[in-house]
Amino acid sequence: MMIRKEDGAGGRYMNEFLRKHVFSKINSRVCEIELAEMEDSADFNETSVLTTDSYVVDPPVFPGGSIGSLAIFGTCNDLAVVGAEPKFMSLALVIQDGFSTEIFDRIMSDISDACGKVGVSIITGDTKVVEANVGIIANTSGIGMRNPFLDKNLEVLRSYREYPFTWVRDRGLGNGDAVILSGSIAEHGSAIMARRIGFDHGIQSDVFPVWTFVKEALSTGGISAMKDPTRGGVAAALNEMAEKSGVGIKVYEDRIPIKDEVKSFCELLGLDPLTMANEGKVVFGVIPEMADDILKALKKAGQKDAEIIGYATDEFREVVLETSAGTSRVVPQPVSDPIPRVC
Amino acid sequence: MMIRKEDGAGGRYMNEFLRKHVFSKINSRVCEIELAEMEDSADFNETSVLTTDSYVVDPPVFPGGSIGSLAIFGTCNDLAVVGAEPKFMSLALVIQDGFSTEIFDRIMSDISDACGKVGVSIITGDTKVVEANVGIIANTSGIGMRNPFLDKNLEVLRSYREYPFTWVRDRGLGNGDAVILSGSIAEHGSAIMARRIGFDHGIQSDVFPVWTFVKEALSTGGISAMKDPTRGGVAAALNEMAEKSGVGIKVYEDRIPIKDEVKSFCELLGLDPLTMANEGKVVFGVIPEMADDILKALKKAGQKDAEIIGYATDEFREVVLETSAGTSRVVPQPVSDPIPRVC
Repeated sequence: MMIRKEDGAGGRYMNEFLRKHVFSKINSRVCEIELAEMEDSADFNETSVLTTDSYVVDPPVFPGGSIGSLAIFGTCNDLAVVGAEPKFMSLALVIQDGFSTEIFDRIMSDISDACGKVGVSIITGDTKVVEANVGIIANTSGIGMRNPFLDKNLEVLRSYREYPFTWVRDRGLGNGDAVILSGSIAEHGSAIMARRIGFDHGIQSDVFPVWTFVKEALSTGGISAMKDPTRGGVAAALNEMAEKSGVGIKVYEDRIPIKDEVKSFCELLGLDPLTMANEGKVVFGVIPEMADDILKALKKAGQKDAEIIGYATDEFREVVLETSAGTSRVVPQPVSDPIPRVC
Repeated sequence: MMIRKEDGAGGRYMNEFLRKHVFSKINSRVCEIELAEMEDSADFNETSVLTTDSYVVDPPVFPGGSIGSLAIFGTCNDLAVVGAEPKFMSLALVIQDGFSTEIFDRIMSDISDACGKVGVSIITGDTKVVEANVGIIANTSGIGMRNPFLDKNLEVLRSYREYPFTWVRDRGLGNGDAVILSGSIAEHGSAIMARRIGFDHGIQSDVFPVWTFVKEALSTGGISAMKDPTRGGVAAALNEMAEKSGVGIKVYEDRIPIKDEVKSFCELLGLDPLTMANEGKVVFGVIPEMADDILKALKKAGQKDAEIIGYATDEFREVVLETSAGTSRVVPQPVSDPIPRVC
């Protein structure tokens, strides 16, 4: 038996692999969030959460960013989507012997800029150089803190309905909740793929620190669930939120924001943009009473393409897409991300 | 310009590389411990520290342990040597496509056992599968907490002299302090090397959770400095402690514990055991008044080979070894670890 690419590709196969080979051996719940729940971060006391990600993106520098900005923003985004403010980080690098010092310096500059943009500090690190053909692998762990924005969100939310969680959870979606997408999709995955095949038509990765707008949405209040649609894209995020929350989600294709050049590129390659990775977007579940206010807050915070793309329902348990052709189809949980080493 | 193996090998070259290419771009001090000080862990509030390590050891299973036990104990040991009790961990795996599921399961079992032995919980994780010939890379970050043992140590220490730090620091060594080594050296590096060349004479890695005896030493009190002698071995640890503390260290060769088979193996290969990696040992600086008590506590806690190997002095600034032949020589900071991918 051997481990396959799909076992680490962020989709259904990975979930099965982790259940069978990891959570059967190690699982723990210190406070509210259990390891096997596969949340974006886990709380280790009332005020703090921890998350980790290893970035293996290839190429390490791509249109719109690099493994440096990705390693900071990506991990901070996992903190932000449970409602935690990113504060402290670790940085562990595994570098291939012979890696270009110039590219390394560029990556370190991106890391420095990214930390400044989010307001996080790298406080500890590690460096290894290996002969294996890895290019560069960056691991960042992040610590996020409870903050007044999160408290405000829970207060507003609980004035409308019960919410059993102390952080914003991907399993918090309720029947009737609006589903809001913060902006246009599939840009990170498309930018990586376009660079690999030498197709250079201006597609940029969306790598971006979501805390900058998540905090505005939280301070408006009424968010019941959040997830950042990275590997496996919006399709994976919606399916996970639906399955964990025990509801279905109806989404409308013509409401899902996507840039023309990204749409054309995906059509050209036969890739489904719903399954393509994003690195600066958030899927929100919002109580219907607050949906318009949250949308307004997101637009004010710079997310001008934010859109209510659908709603949660207890009439079915799938993610159902109403297509622009007027038909509807089930959007399955992707078995894996269509693009290897995308993040 | 390119990055070389030595730039990530835990010695003088790595320190130079980090100063030039990393700390020039990113550096931060949240509380007491600054990133560029290259301590084993960094404090992010009064009660908590964070550390991270990526493990690239090859082969992933070796006599005495595996990358699984190493990834847990190694990171917990970095917490322990600043006096913090290991509590919470992240685990991020990068696995080569085609890696054996059986070996993976063995590694996960070792991780589970190791967590149990230290009493830590893995609360969050990440999994990536790549085509690069990495075998398996494990990153663990660890959070450690202030505890009564550390408080007791500082109380005893400060009853004898000023100590400006709130954690135990590698730069805390004072003139006249005894230098205690917790046990026999060079076993991890030798075990890895022996396995690689197919030399199977029972040399086992010493991979072990040092918190089990560090806490007993702390509760005795009077420890001014600690470091775990991993990459670059005891030679690197002593040099870093001396340089950072602004003192010299005199050590006596015949007091340095080493097992016969390890000594013979190193002689056979022309390797200096002082520069070989350990994964379950600690170098302590201890105020002279408490040295015998600490030694007793260590032996009681199972470290029967613990020994006072020398003392700190302000008469010179080097690490000077008094050899068994009666001569003395300077032990330089290793330029790098003699064995690649040792941890």
